[in-house]
Amino acid sequence: MSRPRTERPTLAEVADAAGVSRATVSKVLNGRHDVSPQTRSRVELLLDEHAYVRRSAARGADAPAVTARGGLDLVVDSLENPYTLEVIRGVTQAAEEEGLELVLTMTPGDGAAAWVERVAAAGRQGAIVVTSSVSAPQRRSLAAARVPLVLVDPLVVTEDVPSVGVTNWAGGLAATEHLIELGHRRIAVLSGVPEASSAIARVHGFRAALANAGLTADPDLIRPGDFGAVLARDSALELLRRRRPPTAIFATSDAQALGAVAAARAAGLAVPRDLSVVGFDGLPLMEWSSPPLTTVQTPMADMGRMAVRTLAYLAGGGELESARIELSTRLVVRESTAPPREDAGN
Amino acid sequence: MSRPRTERPTLAEVADAAGVSRATVSKVLNGRHDVSPQTRSRVELLLDEHAYVRRSAARGADAPAVTARGGLDLVVDSLENPYTLEVIRGVTQAAEEEGLELVLTMTPGDGAAAWVERVAAAGRQGAIVVTSSVSAPQRRSLAAARVPLVLVDPLVVTEDVPSVGVTNWAGGLAATEHLIELGHRRIAVLSGVPEASSAIARVHGFRAALANAGLTADPDLIRPGDFGAVLARDSALELLRRRRPPTAIFATSDAQALGAVAAARAAGLAVPRDLSVVGFDGLPLMEWSSPPLTTVQTPMADMGRMAVRTLAYLAGGGELESARIELSTRLVVRESTAPPREDAGN
Repeated sequence: MSRPRTERPTLAEVADAAGVSRATVSKVLNGRHDVSPQTRSRVELLLDEHAYVRRSAARGADAPAVTARGGLDLVVDSLENPYTLEVIRGVTQAAEEEGLELVLTMTPGDGAAAWVERVAAAGRQGAIVVTSSVSAPQRRSLAAARVPLVLVDPLVVTEDVPSVGVTNWAGGLAATEHLIELGHRRIAVLSGVPEASSAIARVHGFRAALANAGLTADPDLIRPGDFGAVLARDSALELLRRRRPPTAIFATSDAQALGAVAAARAAGLAVPRDLSVVGFDGLPLMEWSSPPLTTVQTPMADMGRMAVRTLAYLAGGGELESARIELSTRLVVRESTAPPREDAGN
Repeated sequence: MSRPRTERPTLAEVADAAGVSRATVSKVLNGRHDVSPQTRSRVELLLDEHAYVRRSAARGADAPAVTARGGLDLVVDSLENPYTLEVIRGVTQAAEEEGLELVLTMTPGDGAAAWVERVAAAGRQGAIVVTSSVSAPQRRSLAAARVPLVLVDPLVVTEDVPSVGVTNWAGGLAATEHLIELGHRRIAVLSGVPEASSAIARVHGFRAALANAGLTADPDLIRPGDFGAVLARDSALELLRRRRPPTAIFATSDAQALGAVAAARAAGLAVPRDLSVVGFDGLPLMEWSSPPLTTVQTPMADMGRMAVRTLAYLAGGGELESARIELSTRLVVRESTAPPREDAGN
């Protein structure tokens, strides 16, 4: 599915395609920090698509704008979701590329004030907080200590703190369009944590796909819960036991999708013959579920990398074009989706 | 399945059961470091079994033997296995309890010499290396810098470096005994990386269970590979297409077990009706596979915690009773195992 790789493109071709100067492409290639993360991301995507071989070895030649002093603080929540591991991977790789020491801590919780104090006292170059929230007082303390902060996939996205996430709306749209194209009309959605920005956007994408196809969303088929498998299984089981059950379920996380598949098993239904299921995340091993899960793949490791680069850019005095950076999602069609049964009576 | 919880046991009862003094139990309860990790582990297990409520709040009262200066270096490999996340979780929690800053790095690889230099220069209290190996020159350099090293689940276990692992032999034995008790006689094993100490011990446990039951292991049913799903699927598919296929497969990792389940699907066989599958690891989400996976649960987070405590003990001048610490595994029976079909012709 990748583009044909012919001769090596010139730097000018990539610059043209990205709509930037050759100097900017050159800066990206050399790992310079005076390029905004958004532009860098666009250029890198094109470099990858054009199979441009980066001289990563040449990186060391340019002194990074940020020195190793202090390093980065990476704050993660309960460390129970494989999702988090992927983000950590991206952060670790990028931190090593930037020569930044990486200090790992769990969500500060009660010790929040102590955490801010410690980060400030240690002279950290910045802090990255994954899937958690940072209170307004904490943010003010970090700002006062001149420690830049970048959130990865925060529960609630606000415009006053830089954050890296994914195109949740487009992902929800693509997942639902896929189901509609297969012929599904009664599509339920396991909509995750009601107040989570990511879940809200995914459900909006779901609604948009239905509206685009001239369908209306049945409020009775939209089931909130959390991002885990247990509540999802219970919700899905309830849906499947109705007189007119849905023929497909869009789950706003892979764990919820596994819960939906378990519910189908419990109800004596086969996936995808009797029920199609689409997940969201693209966790490792989902291609090895039974059946392999159709899901919206999110670039978890890239989110981690982008967070580090954004911090480095901010620490170097750069200003962001917008506080929110969204990386692309991609629908991966595997074997958990198929046309509805003829007798499903749409 | 947990033991009945009656009245609170006295400290003396726990001490008796552990075969140690009351003072030692008291030290464990108060988080003191002058107890060897092995003894601590045994006492903590008994405290848990007796539902003894630990006064974790009292921990702060005893000054830890190790100060926060320098912290710990945690070295992980490619960060692609959910297993690693669990170990990181245990290390992070224990490091916070000990007041140790945790620096996360990827396996040094080419930059190995630089890594040792950096760890030594930073005055680290110790280094924990997960599932990777550390070369003899690296070990000598760390020893010269007086930086204690503890390995978690190293590829090859040697007696000259402290390491924390699990009871691989007992786990392989329990998995195979379970299959034999169900009535299986033709049991194949996906034996993982041939040179890995953990895999070798698991297969020895498998052989021991067969021998105990008066059965002989068919060398043709022992299939090496790696710990991943791809090779496992191919091996399992080949096994299942034989004239007399195995009725059960013991996989030495959960990922291999998922590969075996995928092979059954590809061969038109149902798990567990036509094939029983047992995994090893107990990764998160395995209870949500279809069918939920019977597996040997390893205490991944506890391995991380034990590694931190062992380092703290070593840094405080303690000496280990043995270089190798093994934590218990536990067979978790779910729905991927059942008696063989009547017509399987054992």
